[in-house]
Amino acid sequence: MIERLAIIGVGLIGGSLSLALRQAGAVGEVVGFGRNRNNLDKGVELGVLDRHAATLAEAIDGADVVVVAVPLGAMSAVLAEIGRALPDSAVVTDVGSAKGAVVSAARAAFGEALPRFVPGHPIAGTEKSGVEAGFASLFQGRRVILTPLAETDAGATDTVAAMWQHCGAVVESMDVEHHDRVLAATSHLPHMLAYALVHHLSNLNDHAEIFRYAAGGFRDFTRIASSDPVMWRDVCLANGEALVELIEQYQHELELVAAAIRDSDADELLRLFGRAKSERDSLIGNC
Amino acid sequence: MIERLAIIGVGLIGGSLSLALRQAGAVGEVVGFGRNRNNLDKGVELGVLDRHAATLAEAIDGADVVVVAVPLGAMSAVLAEIGRALPDSAVVTDVGSAKGAVVSAARAAFGEALPRFVPGHPIAGTEKSGVEAGFASLFQGRRVILTPLAETDAGATDTVAAMWQHCGAVVESMDVEHHDRVLAATSHLPHMLAYALVHHLSNLNDHAEIFRYAAGGFRDFTRIASSDPVMWRDVCLANGEALVELIEQYQHELELVAAAIRDSDADELLRLFGRAKSERDSLIGNC
Repeated sequence: MIERLAIIGVGLIGGSLSLALRQAGAVGEVVGFGRNRNNLDKGVELGVLDRHAATLAEAIDGADVVVVAVPLGAMSAVLAEIGRALPDSAVVTDVGSAKGAVVSAARAAFGEALPRFVPGHPIAGTEKSGVEAGFASLFQGRRVILTPLAETDAGATDTVAAMWQHCGAVVESMDVEHHDRVLAATSHLPHMLAYALVHHLSNLNDHAEIFRYAAGGFRDFTRIASSDPVMWRDVCLANGEALVELIEQYQHELELVAAAIRDSDADELLRLFGRAKSERDSLIGNC
Repeated sequence: MIERLAIIGVGLIGGSLSLALRQAGAVGEVVGFGRNRNNLDKGVELGVLDRHAATLAEAIDGADVVVVAVPLGAMSAVLAEIGRALPDSAVVTDVGSAKGAVVSAARAAFGEALPRFVPGHPIAGTEKSGVEAGFASLFQGRRVILTPLAETDAGATDTVAAMWQHCGAVVESMDVEHHDRVLAATSHLPHMLAYALVHHLSNLNDHAEIFRYAAGGFRDFTRIASSDPVMWRDVCLANGEALVELIEQYQHELELVAAAIRDSDADELLRLFGRAKSERDSLIGNC
């Protein structure tokens, strides 16, 4: 049971976390802080927050758990401010989707309190953003990856793991670099591909007509291109190295497809598509 | 009202067409033909077909409308055989997703009967295939593009348009080349990108683990990579020119994204993603 939870950055993730913990009866008071006063008022109105604080220091005062759910680009400044005001014994975690940059920022921010920081990443979300997009079941059955450091206190990790388990999530651990590589492949690269496709089609002369003929497959394929551009800019800046490497490999792969089409190489096309289909069907199901 | 409909190739599209027309009371007898006897038996069992024929000539004998729903790769041979046995006054249409190649085959096949061939393409489907995947509402609210030729009889076009309207589809016309270019952009290119992504990830050492962390966005994004490899091989062979041109343009676009990440160009990344999101949201909705 968390007596007082402080959520810094009350959007889709922070808001859903509060709703899920409330539904599980696993939290006492929820205090929010963020840059946008209207958004915080809406959080109180929607029952996501009990109250919001005027300053970050006030928000985390007396909290036993602090969840940092701000965009990656704001993480460094917010962690530094938390480091200066962190109450004794409070545990801090974040929800950033690239961990290397967050861990660097945490090392700079926390000093002696570093063992109480548990880097985390709930693999959940929708293309919507903002506190009003939050819902209690967002984390149900989803994975949350924690990337504790050598210095991290085991009790702090347990506290954060228990919090996510109360939300119905499956909690796993991996090291920071491995996390960033896996997420670059399953999430960051697909977002780049979808953004690039929609941007490319937008440049065609007859783009309005082209989108008119988009069917369900196109809608599904490009859904992630409706995600928050600020968030994805920040992901690119935070996990650029792993992402660029994957984009370059992907460009090579796409060139193989193009070459097979140019050569009318029926066997190679069937091999490529067949292997992709059987891999997807066996590993995530034909759905 | 179609008195006797012959469906050549009884899969997802042919089967759904029959079910939709039956539901609308717009068809009398439905006769099927295809290579796979078990599949045809299943079609009868599922109520998709009244009966199946032992030969293509028998299937189209006495039909007023013949729908060719075979894979693109089989189209040329099937149209040639239909051309040799076509009953007087029967109208023929197809459902191929690339029209240039089909029209060339039809010109070779039909001779004097060419005016009774109406090239068509229902923009509908799922990643499933086979007659058992068919359902009556597949075409409800979907677009069907007809690409009639200069020679095509207006009455034949009206017959085919009416058939699709009975299925709840919105029927439109465009010329063959334009169709192939629009579909390359909205359908063929996205399929290539999804196949290439899944194939690429399959080559990584830790691919099983990577797929394990795939969330909803990845599932949606790669769904079309579970589509029928034979169908997509055939699309590549039939519409290769338009498709390769788009892949090359896309590679350039993706290089712009990679360059912006390499340069940590925050403004350019935000511009690219923001433009893609606003285009998608305004043209197909944030869903």
